[in-house]
Amino acid sequence: MSLRPPEPTVRDVGEFGLIAAITEGLGPTASVPVSVGDDCAVLAPTGRLAVSTDAMIEDVHFKRVWSSAHDVGRKAVASAMADVEAMGARPLGLVVSASLPKDLPASWARELTAGIRAEAELCGAQLVGGDITSGDKIGIVCTVFGDLEGRTPTLRCGAVPGQVVAYIGNLGMAEAGLTVLRRGFRSPAAVVNAHRVPAPPYGQGIVASEAGAGAMIDCSDGLVADLRHIAEASGVVIALETDALQVAEPQKTVAAAIGGAEPLDFILRGGDDHALLATFAPGRVPAGWTVIGGVAAADGTPGVLVDGRPWDADGGWTHF
Amino acid sequence: MSLRPPEPTVRDVGEFGLIAAITEGLGPTASVPVSVGDDCAVLAPTGRLAVSTDAMIEDVHFKRVWSSAHDVGRKAVASAMADVEAMGARPLGLVVSASLPKDLPASWARELTAGIRAEAELCGAQLVGGDITSGDKIGIVCTVFGDLEGRTPTLRCGAVPGQVVAYIGNLGMAEAGLTVLRRGFRSPAAVVNAHRVPAPPYGQGIVASEAGAGAMIDCSDGLVADLRHIAEASGVVIALETDALQVAEPQKTVAAAIGGAEPLDFILRGGDDHALLATFAPGRVPAGWTVIGGVAAADGTPGVLVDGRPWDADGGWTHF
Repeated sequence: MSLRPPEPTVRDVGEFGLIAAITEGLGPTASVPVSVGDDCAVLAPTGRLAVSTDAMIEDVHFKRVWSSAHDVGRKAVASAMADVEAMGARPLGLVVSASLPKDLPASWARELTAGIRAEAELCGAQLVGGDITSGDKIGIVCTVFGDLEGRTPTLRCGAVPGQVVAYIGNLGMAEAGLTVLRRGFRSPAAVVNAHRVPAPPYGQGIVASEAGAGAMIDCSDGLVADLRHIAEASGVVIALETDALQVAEPQKTVAAAIGGAEPLDFILRGGDDHALLATFAPGRVPAGWTVIGGVAAADGTPGVLVDGRPWDADGGWTHF
Repeated sequence: MSLRPPEPTVRDVGEFGLIAAITEGLGPTASVPVSVGDDCAVLAPTGRLAVSTDAMIEDVHFKRVWSSAHDVGRKAVASAMADVEAMGARPLGLVVSASLPKDLPASWARELTAGIRAEAELCGAQLVGGDITSGDKIGIVCTVFGDLEGRTPTLRCGAVPGQVVAYIGNLGMAEAGLTVLRRGFRSPAAVVNAHRVPAPPYGQGIVASEAGAGAMIDCSDGLVADLRHIAEASGVVIALETDALQVAEPQKTVAAAIGGAEPLDFILRGGDDHALLATFAPGRVPAGWTVIGGVAAADGTPGVLVDGRPWDADGGWTHF
């Protein structure tokens, strides 16, 4: 029998040790003239500032048995920063408040930090501050900042009849991944990884804004649910054509494996991939975006039609 | 025996019901052109933006048996916004992420919100966004924003030998309050209320900045501990003179009641009142601020002297 020394925990390393590791090498830049280490950070955006906050809680939004600490850090940043993209803003910075159990391995906390910083770097944002407390479960609150750089923010309420609806990014991949993980499987890798680390189409929010997008949102509640947010805010009907939606091979695999489910359902109901959904004047859809429907005047209640049929609030077709 | 209907819980009201109550009446203003309800809020500060985040966790930072929900909401905002004051910025806005147990009475959540909005109004900031999740314990993360309005931020590193050290606000009141609450008492009211709702001296951060403050910090870790942060960041020695510190009557009462404690200790060790501490050129101390010491060159290690004697890292005098 061999005895391994116990792995150091968050309690062993302490708040100040963790903060030192997290903030190592973070310094001032042109857009962050005061970085970590004072009472506040100071941001110097060139335009107005887009701000959003998003919490990710263990066993609600992720499980430690399904995702690595690095995955969790990346997902926390990605899912929050997708909101910045959806305004047409450029990711600038973020602050993170983490609640960590005292007996959490210190290595887990360090990997979480590495994931946070990796995703921040990927989207071009700087970690500018944070807070660590102890808690029974892991909780990560990311508050993210984006520079509008003089652009007008693209809101949910700007969809106009006659525009087309388009998306860029993944749809229903994370949902298919969550489905297999819940059943105890770890493949197909493409969908499982999509659950672990979403891949928002960074930079495309600005592209959409510059193409004159009417309304924009990131897809986090589900494709139909998020299109409904646009429809209701804009007072229009959005007609979604499922022919335009491409079901991916691994989604078909998962649907078949779980017993004849409809793979399109992952796409229509699934959120958490943080694709961008936007409306454009016909002919002004940017390269790489896929048109999936159109905007019509609301003759009564605003909402979403799927292949011409109403879709109810539970995310399914209305049965009448 | 009378049966009262069970009080509705957070679970009964649901996330969207809570959010509707929280955001009621919040709309766009000149400095917040996009308020709650879209992917992001949009802030339009006139200068650079000071940003800080602060978490408050049940049974770590407050207890439900000691503080009302309204108190907790006010404290969460006040303790975070004090960091904005300490930069010389004007409170502009905040986002709040709340983790709430599902069986929490909905009335508690509403009172929490009322407290958050009351304190925000007191300091002139707007609630611009948030997030609600469920959790075992109540956790409130406030991320706060301040407008520097063209002023240079006042950092911790700007103390210069020859300056004086001054403060404004309460010192050691919350600590005395916590002491009696821990022993099961609920009075004196002045100190117990100071624990429940700190009273940062709103507006005085700008006053200090305009008076040319060298360094500034809000007192949250303790008077000596926070002066040490300034001393170390600035590479100076801060000499604190306890004669200048006024012990309040209720602090004397508490010290006597708990058996001959030194009431000055509440002031030297206590944080959580969020007084402002700053250094000024002699003769430039703003009205209302109290001089409590001076800044000297560090002849060796930067740090804090209390009445000419070194004070060790545990917050007590070094015994040698």
